[in-house]
Amino acid sequence: MADTAKVAEKEKMTIVVFSGELDKALAAFIIATTGASMGMDVTMFFTFWGLNILKKNEGGMKSKGFKQKMFSILNRGGSSRLKLSRFNMLGLGTWMMKMVMKESHYPSIDEFITMAKEMGVKLIPCSTTCGMFGLTENSFRNGVENIAGAAFFVGEARKSKVTLFI
Amino acid sequence: MADTAKVAEKEKMTIVVFSGELDKALAAFIIATTGASMGMDVTMFFTFWGLNILKKNEGGMKSKGFKQKMFSILNRGGSSRLKLSRFNMLGLGTWMMKMVMKESHYPSIDEFITMAKEMGVKLIPCSTTCGMFGLTENSFRNGVENIAGAAFFVGEARKSKVTLFI
Amino acid sequence: MADTAKVAEKEKMTIVVFSGELDKALAAFIIATTGASMGMDVTMFFTFWGLNILKKNEGGMKSKGFKQKMFSILNRGGSSRLKLSRFNMLGLGTWMMKMVMKESHYPSIDEFITMAKEMGVKLIPCSTTCGMFGLTENSFRNGVENIAGAAFFVGEARKSKVTLFI
Repeated sequence: MADTAKVAEKEKMTIVVFSGELDKALAAFIIATTGASMGMDVTMFFTFWGLNILKKNEGGMKSKGFKQKMFSILNRGGSSRLKLSRFNMLGLGTWMMKMVMKESHYPSIDEFITMAKEMGVKLIPCSTTCGMFGLTENSFRNGVENIAGAAFFVGEARKSKVTLFI
Repeated sequence: MADTAKVAEKEKMTIVVFSGELDKALAAFIIATTGASMGMDVTMFFTFWGLNILKKNEGGMKSKGFKQKMFSILNRGGSSRLKLSRFNMLGLGTWMMKMVMKESHYPSIDEFITMAKEMGVKLIPCSTTCGMFGLTENSFRNGVENIAGAAFFVGEARKSKVTLFI
Repeated sequence: MADTAKVAEKEKMTIVVFSGELDKALAAFIIATTGASMGMDVTMFFTFWGLNILKKNEGGMKSKGFKQKMFSILNRGGSSRLKLSRFNMLGLGTWMMKMVMKESHYPSIDEFITMAKEMGVKLIPCSTTCGMFGLTENSFRNGVENIAGAAFFVGEARKSKVTLFI
């Protein structure tokens, strides 16, 4: 109970991760892990294309319904398939970005997800868009929290010192 | 007066809707209506491409000035013409998204606008970008509030518990 | 010292400028200068493509390392090279937008940067992404503050009334 009280006193940061691009995902994880390292209680709420970041890197054609299946072919997801929002150039820009990150000894998105988890950042898929895209809790990698709805997000955001939509 | 006092005590949420894409518009209206249903006083401030969401679905070539007219041909707007920010694929992705929304009994943007209005969400076009695009209050559908400037937005945002730029 | 105390009492606004497009840059500067004119203490934190806005308009191929050099060719930057996020159409849309801005006697991005500086808005490049893109303080125009890291941004954001990610 003393512990719960202590957590409740931490300043909160809430980030909606709407975008599924490599650069925006990086920005979101840099801010989230920095916040956590400064003692904040950080929640990342993944919705729309942002859900791709948390999808398993395997095939994962598990979505139900015909249109959802078609969508999931287009929109395969998994942290290793993210592309840049600019200069993707059939993959060349994305590949160069990944090289630059590696050379600068910069963590990959996979490493950022692991780091974030270890620092206590909560990674939550949005239930509304999961329904739209035919995703279930099985679609996501280990360590992801239970899916939750927009009301959960708004509840967190109104208690937060910092709320971002990325 | 008692009523005004009560409104003033409500927690505020302010959303800048900069983007005019179907998926981002959906995210904005999901968050806005969820906030309103949780008792928040929600203002959506539409600017740049976000103005398209509020434009009449009719022709509406009413903008003044030659360059504004050319822009309005490119940028016709109206809630039924919004496209996805990804996977539009000459309209195929957008059509699939609309099908999925319909099958999941999910409201369309038009229905979301009506719902938001009924829940007391204020929909405000930004006067600065209206000027740039040659739009007037006649360009917008019924139920939209008077246009207002960036100072109005900043005034609301600084009193808000949650402010998002979408 | 009295002066420092006075500054500390001002309400803060913090804007992450992630995007390097003309329209998003405009939105960021409109909000920042409006905030400053209303007495707020405004910090703009430029990261990823947003760094382009602050780059010198000259050639400026000063980045170190081969891959950083290749990136800087693609991603030349400088306020006069920004493009629209929509309807760029090989430059036609961007040209039309600039014409409309001029005719409406609207400031250019260059003028906005000068105005913002004069109003006391702080323009800060993100050190993490500077490292990734091989940029140093010499890469940026005059008047830009020292580069700073994500921890600086989070520190400002948690003290701010308004925080936006653009």
